[in-house]
Amino acid sequence: MSERIKIVEVGPRDGLQNEQAVTTAAKIQLVNDLALAGVDYIETGSFVSPKWVPQMADSGDVFAGISRQSGVTYAALTPNLKGFEAAMAARADEVAIFGAASEGFSQKNINCSIAESLERFTPVLAAAADNGLKVRGYVSCVLGCPYDGDIAPDQVAWVAEKLYQMGCYEVSLGDTIGVGTPLKAQRMLEAVAAKVPMEKLALHFHNTYGQALANIASCLPLGVRTIDSAVAGLGGCPYAKGASGNVASEDVVYMLHGMGYDTGIDLAQLITAGKRICSNLGQQPRSNVALAEIAKHSN
Amino acid sequence: MSERIKIVEVGPRDGLQNEQAVTTAAKIQLVNDLALAGVDYIETGSFVSPKWVPQMADSGDVFAGISRQSGVTYAALTPNLKGFEAAMAARADEVAIFGAASEGFSQKNINCSIAESLERFTPVLAAAADNGLKVRGYVSCVLGCPYDGDIAPDQVAWVAEKLYQMGCYEVSLGDTIGVGTPLKAQRMLEAVAAKVPMEKLALHFHNTYGQALANIASCLPLGVRTIDSAVAGLGGCPYAKGASGNVASEDVVYMLHGMGYDTGIDLAQLITAGKRICSNLGQQPRSNVALAEIAKHSN
Repeated sequence: MSERIKIVEVGPRDGLQNEQAVTTAAKIQLVNDLALAGVDYIETGSFVSPKWVPQMADSGDVFAGISRQSGVTYAALTPNLKGFEAAMAARADEVAIFGAASEGFSQKNINCSIAESLERFTPVLAAAADNGLKVRGYVSCVLGCPYDGDIAPDQVAWVAEKLYQMGCYEVSLGDTIGVGTPLKAQRMLEAVAAKVPMEKLALHFHNTYGQALANIASCLPLGVRTIDSAVAGLGGCPYAKGASGNVASEDVVYMLHGMGYDTGIDLAQLITAGKRICSNLGQQPRSNVALAEIAKHSN
Repeated sequence: MSERIKIVEVGPRDGLQNEQAVTTAAKIQLVNDLALAGVDYIETGSFVSPKWVPQMADSGDVFAGISRQSGVTYAALTPNLKGFEAAMAARADEVAIFGAASEGFSQKNINCSIAESLERFTPVLAAAADNGLKVRGYVSCVLGCPYDGDIAPDQVAWVAEKLYQMGCYEVSLGDTIGVGTPLKAQRMLEAVAAKVPMEKLALHFHNTYGQALANIASCLPLGVRTIDSAVAGLGGCPYAKGASGNVASEDVVYMLHGMGYDTGIDLAQLITAGKRICSNLGQQPRSNVALAEIAKHSN
């Protein structure tokens, strides 16, 4: 039996919120395609103000339209109580909240300090507990911030520990702008794992500077076993338009299978899921594995 | 003092031989741009039959046209004695020969066994020794072959040892089709390093499946300190047209600098060199670092 790595597929949410709009039907198809490929955790949508994230305005319809598979978790991002209630109404299986490791990022993006942002999550966590829903916590800018530059590993550890203490069952460590490199990623993860058990941590790395797989590969020996990724590398980088965003699920799965890990995912079906949403977006997949396989079979 | 990693820039040769043709002037500009960026080893051209590699037919003119910088090695690929003599006439500083770790690849590409191919290099190595030129050896298909599939690490070690014993001062281990993953890369390197001293080995990884940086990052702790790469990720994959080829020098240098290694290369100038040749090719760089930096500065 090979060791299992949990893949958290964020393409329908973190991916599509940074792409041009696609139809609700295309989103539903994507979520269903991912589940059929064996992906058992799909961040399906986000309940935030459509003023801020118009691409996610139809998340309720997406949740209503999908064909739910048993054993698959369909999660939603819910920054506040209003969002949480909408996620409950949509029958999301889990919710997620989003903190920053960088004061500059927190101030510029949500106009409050990190500490204040964490306080705002208290009612969401309380409501989730009341309703028996698990809450996943994101920490952004763990390897660098577009405003503050380098972020100290201890600062990341402090925010991650807070989210964990507040009740998040898992904390996902996001290199939001994709600037990290392997040693920095290892040092950050080690600092966080000194405060939060490794099995409660996930890596959420963006590929803006092409480093995501190298960073993941370098962190696996430390014991992390949950990886966030987006099929077809969906999602750009809002701080460098035209650059890559999330690490592509196909590339992560290819690497993990090559290293002998089990993900439960059928890579060929995952590639098919990515091709279909990219066809709906009118763009090529940003997955090297997908491009190589498409090229190989078209020669 | 941070530790030095030697970057062997293969863009003008391994890169451009797999791209559409560019002018001789554009090639000369690329080599000069690379030297100005601090690259001190540039595989500048190839002396092979223009019937087989028409893109390299003007290598003599490229060598004649470049502005040689002191401290920079301008190398040439020379598969046979005729090529070696042309490289001598062009005043190449070093030459390289090219073997395969895969019998299937050797048979399909040069119509002879690996052992026969090695014999053919004997006169080149003798002539190089007579003329005081160093010879670099390449081994292709070290992590997989388009015909034979998986390649045993011991088979790679056998070919690498042969090249080293025949007089190659360095052996470059090529994942020609870019299919390798981190553990396989480590096992292959360990097997080779049991036969050839680690300081005589280089990694030459292609990014076809997006794994090149992860593989390099995973092999650095084993002690390898020479990396082949191509600016802008020049060079496609002849076995999957449209897929990525060589790992991009910009991405390698960014990672290495982030890990505290010294390369002697100015990343901004390297990006500029890649942008210029890509402009001449009419394509975007296949370097995530280059794309991210271009996007950041155009926002």
